[in-house]
Parts: sequence; structure tokens; C-alpha cells
Amino acid sequence: METVELVLDTSGGSISDLTAELRRFCRGRGDGLVNAYCPHATAALVLMETGAGSDQDLLDWLRDQLPRDDRYRHRHGSAGHGADHLLPALLGSSVTVPVVAGEPLLGTWQSLLLVDTNSDNNRRRLRLSFLPTT
Amino acid sequence: METVELVLDTSGGSISDLTAELRRFCRGRGDGLVNAYCPHATAALVLMETGAGSDQDLLDWLRDQLPRDDRYRHRHGSAGHGADHLLPALLGSSVTVPVVAGEPLLGTWQSLLLVDTNSDNNRRRLRLSFLPTT
Amino acid sequence: METVELVLDTSGGSISDLTAELRRFCRGRGDGLVNAYCPHATAALVLMETGAGSDQDLLDWLRDQLPRDDRYRHRHGSAGHGADHLLPALLGSSVTVPVVAGEPLLGTWQSLLLVDTNSDNNRRRLRLSFLPTT
Repeated sequence: METVELVLDTSGGSISDLTAELRRFCRGRGDGLVNAYCPHATAALVLMETGAGSDQDLLDWLRDQLPRDDRYRHRHGSAGHGADHLLPALLGSSVTVPVVAGEPLLGTWQSLLLVDTNSDNNRRRLRLSFLPTT
Repeated sequence: METVELVLDTSGGSISDLTAELRRFCRGRGDGLVNAYCPHATAALVLMETGAGSDQDLLDWLRDQLPRDDRYRHRHGSAGHGADHLLPALLGSSVTVPVVAGEPLLGTWQSLLLVDTNSDNNRRRLRLSFLPTT
Repeated sequence: METVELVLDTSGGSISDLTAELRRFCRGRGDGLVNAYCPHATAALVLMETGAGSDQDLLDWLRDQLPRDDRYRHRHGSAGHGADHLLPALLGSSVTVPVVAGEPLLGTWQSLLLVDTNSDNNRRRLRLSFLPTT
């Protein structure tokens, strides 16, 4: 099977590290590209370092740039929820990583992170797909 | 044919919904990934919700973050046109979506939007390509 | 060989034009998609116009939006280096371009640029991968 959908519990916070899931999916698949896709309009996928403060730096930047106030025309959900709807446009809904011999070629400091500042929904889906190059 | 180029008339506004075109292209193609690509240096492709205010929220955010004034070194075209040239870097020129049984797996609230704040050019091109996973 | 890694010397500045490398890699490969991937946590890949001021406009925008001061929790490296770690999230680590008859279908004004504001590291890697559509 070359494509799978995972269900994630994001109640632990606004950033979830999905690197282990990405590696597990690629194992045994040979050479190609892996695509991680987030089918939600208020969450995003990024590659960045985690564990040395940068993940929180990103959340701080987003809070400054997309204040959770009443400026948004989108008015459903919690106060400031309109901000969440700009995340996919600014950060992106998918990430593509080369794979060689079943191993995604992430750099030493790259992790796959789901950014999800929308606390109204703690059940998220992630689709992983593999495309062979050979 | 696994890749096609569409010509779009964007005189209707700064955001064009291309979701129907994406679905039509995928129909009958089985499993894979579809890539939508925008070959312009002053327009971008994003996945986000439309119809509930968020598309206008994005344009407001861009106007705040990329003011259409004379701060830009790029000086061709209309006043503030330098701002348009930063759109592809900030938002991205392509979008990749998994496809199963000829259906792109967009989330319920995800639409494919062309963001094009450059009113000097109302004829835009969009390339759609399909990569089979099986 | 459908995937290669290049080693780049980025001592020349914060933006490196990799368009020639992208074209060279695609030559003779037929139809498909080419993926350029940056395995670094403090650099990004974008498609944009270069040579008419927009590349410097992007660096100016980044300096305004991600000031190189002590606001970041990430404190390794030079002053303000925490800013570099947000680049991949905001701009993206990879770019995908359709290829027809061995030619990447970049628009007239699109170039592939590596954005790397981290002067602590002048040796960067770039991976290019080709996926056939037929």
C-alpha cells in the first residue's frame, strides 16, 4: 500500500512531531519521494528544528503576525479562530521529502511538524504517500 | 495525457477558486498525487477555506505585510507591484494533493486558490500534472 | 540516476540562484516532476524573479519580519540566528516543478533560489529528484 491515513491526537499542544511516523512509513520502500499531506483548513505541515526553542519561536511569530483578535472576517469558532485559517496559506499543507533505500533524507536538524493552533479540534488526520523514482 | 496547461481569466478578482478544475483533471486517473503549478512570478497557489471570509482575510494580511508603497527595489509595473513579487516566496508556487480513485483528497474545507494581486495581468496559466503511485 | 545531491558554496551571499543546476539535472529525462530539496534547518528554497530587485526585497522583508535580535528562544550560534530557524517554515524546504521533454517548465520570470541568511555555514547541500509521469 503506497498511501495511508493516520489519525492524530493533538491535545498535547500546538505542535506535534511526526518525524517517527514519516520514517516508519518509508521503511522498506526503496527510492522515491514521500509526501505528507494535511487535509485540514486550520493546520499546517512544516520541516524545522524542534527541541531547541524554534518551535516555540514559530508559535510566537504566528501570534504576533496573526493576532487572535476580532480583525478577521471569518467569525466561526473561538475568538481569533480566523487566524488559524491563514496558517495553511502561510506555512503550507504538505511537505515532500526525498527517500533513498527506505529512509527519508531529512537533514540532521529537520523534523516534520504539524502546526495546529486551533484548540477546537484535537483529532487530526495526516496522509502519507510514497512515489517511487525507479 | 498526464499533464495539461489551463489558461485562466483572473479579471474577476485577486483570488480564483480552481478546485473544480483540479477535480476534473483527476477524474478517472486512479491513485497518485496531483501537482498544481503556477508558472508566474507574481501569483501563488494555496489550499485554504473559501466562502467564509478567510480569502479576504488573507488579502488583508498581505496588504498589511506587503504594503503597496515605494519601499521595493523592484520598480517595474504599477505602484507597489514589488509586493506582488514576494507572493510566490511567501505563499508558494505549487500545491500537491494525494489522489485516490481519481478523487483529490482535499479536506472538507480545503479549496485550491490562485492568489494574484497583480492587476496588470489577467491572463494566467496553471499546469496540472498527475503522478501515479501504483 | 534519478536523484543527486549537489554541494553548494554559499559564501557569495544570502541568495544563490540554482536555476542552471535545475535545468542541467532535467536534461534528457523526458516528462515528469522535478523536486528540489534543501536538507537544512536554516535555509529555504523559493521560486521567484531575480535580477530586478525582488531578491533583495525578500531579504529586506525577512529582516523586518524576523529581526536579528534576542527575542528568540533558540540561542545557539550568532546573534539573531534564531531568525534563520523560521525560514524553512515560512518559505519552505522544497520546490516541485513540472518537466516536459527534459525541460523544467519554469515561467519566464521564475528562478530557483536558495535563501540562506545563516552566515555561519557556507557549505550547503541540495538534492534534486526526478519523478516520471509516464
